[in-house]
Amino acid sequence: MVKTICVIGVGLIGGSLAYGLRKHHWCESIIGIDAQQHAINEAIRLNVIDAGYTSVDDCPVIPDIVVIAVPVLKIANIFQQLKPWMNKCKAMTDVSSTKQSVIDDFNQVFPEQLSNCFVPGHPIAGREQSGVHAAIDNLFGNKKVILTPTQQTSDDSLKLITDMWEQVGANVEQLSSQDHDQILAATSHLPHALAFSLVHCLSTQSHTQEIFRYAAGGFADFTRIASSDPAIWRDICLANREALLRALSHFDTSLQQFRSGLEAGDGSILEEVFVDAKNARDRYTDS
Amino acid sequence: MVKTICVIGVGLIGGSLAYGLRKHHWCESIIGIDAQQHAINEAIRLNVIDAGYTSVDDCPVIPDIVVIAVPVLKIANIFQQLKPWMNKCKAMTDVSSTKQSVIDDFNQVFPEQLSNCFVPGHPIAGREQSGVHAAIDNLFGNKKVILTPTQQTSDDSLKLITDMWEQVGANVEQLSSQDHDQILAATSHLPHALAFSLVHCLSTQSHTQEIFRYAAGGFADFTRIASSDPAIWRDICLANREALLRALSHFDTSLQQFRSGLEAGDGSILEEVFVDAKNARDRYTDS
Repeated sequence: MVKTICVIGVGLIGGSLAYGLRKHHWCESIIGIDAQQHAINEAIRLNVIDAGYTSVDDCPVIPDIVVIAVPVLKIANIFQQLKPWMNKCKAMTDVSSTKQSVIDDFNQVFPEQLSNCFVPGHPIAGREQSGVHAAIDNLFGNKKVILTPTQQTSDDSLKLITDMWEQVGANVEQLSSQDHDQILAATSHLPHALAFSLVHCLSTQSHTQEIFRYAAGGFADFTRIASSDPAIWRDICLANREALLRALSHFDTSLQQFRSGLEAGDGSILEEVFVDAKNARDRYTDS
Repeated sequence: MVKTICVIGVGLIGGSLAYGLRKHHWCESIIGIDAQQHAINEAIRLNVIDAGYTSVDDCPVIPDIVVIAVPVLKIANIFQQLKPWMNKCKAMTDVSSTKQSVIDDFNQVFPEQLSNCFVPGHPIAGREQSGVHAAIDNLFGNKKVILTPTQQTSDDSLKLITDMWEQVGANVEQLSSQDHDQILAATSHLPHALAFSLVHCLSTQSHTQEIFRYAAGGFADFTRIASSDPAIWRDICLANREALLRALSHFDTSLQQFRSGLEAGDGSILEEVFVDAKNARDRYTDS
């Protein structure tokens, strides 16, 4: 039985994990740490956490498990704060959308011999809303959680974090941090960049209101992710900069193929792009 | 009371319109014309039409209203077939996603003095499925239908086609064909081109299966339109080539702004694009 879990960053992801773990009575108590006192208050009021503090230093106990659920560019600072707990916790994990940048941050702060409890992780789940009031106990049910253990990660810590996520219904898989970052750049970070860029370009045109007035359902679906939190996505893009630039180059090749076909009025080039895409997507949705 | 409506192209759009008009008993009979005999048979079996023929020449009566619902690049050929009916119908309309190319096709076939019954139109509605078996009687309920009358279009014909669409629950509006084409390039044709290009680029990479395996809900939404019919979208892109190339250039400017910010590691540039986009999209979904 796990005694205490500490969730650092009590927002949508951290809050939903805490909710789910409480529901399944997987641990005796859950402590929240968040720089915003109102987030702590709200999380206690919603019964998501038992107690909360605005900094790691204020926390009176050393938890068995630490889950870091803060925006990715704030993690280096959290690692600094966690120095006193490092060789005393059973496992430490994060939920960031990029993995190599987090591992780099970790290695900067901790010498290798002390770093065997860290299990980098990324739950592929979310909602458009953010904040602890949007947290739900089944956010991770049947969703994938990717863990990217390093050479230093101990088997015990890996098993503990795997158990934790499976407890809230997630399907846990392992990838290298490099593969994770390249795959997520393609399926998540690049689509966000394209959706944001498209809506940005429409918002800068003279007849913006007209444009949006006549938008149909396909447009709403296509641009849904452009309503995501700009600060979080800015940081994700910066943290996964190299993989995202590579993904952008690949995309450019396909878009240029489409554009050159359109400029030349050559339907066969357009059709090649469209047919390949439809076949690939239909295979993916069928599987 | 309208006596006979002839729907040319008995697929999703033509079939759904026929279904809706029958349900509201707006006309005495509906004739379907489709080059595919099996589409005619299916439409009669589903009680979408009363009778059907594989060409205009075979149709024994001249209808009051003609609705052309074939892929946009096939319309010029249909206009040729419709020559014998031109000065005998009360109104003629189409449902194509581009309007200026259709008007150009029309003007090529018909001298101006005979062309006052033609009301170019575009219902902004659809489903992922195609074919008459996907037709539903309320496809146009609360959806916009844009009519782009020309200087030759008669008031009587415009009123008749407006009434027809309102009968099946649509909100009818008027735009110039130029405005229509530019707006639809931005909100529909460009998003389709981007979604197709993105999935195409992912499908050409070495670890395609891995990439799709880890795709989350945002990806499914973003790429839904890449499961649309490739031939139909090839033709729409070609028919709206100039407006789409202009929309693509606008998009390029925004994407380059994002890319240069990412290359420079400058979060403020990324945030500017993302915040503008989120604000514009949130305004649009709130309105």
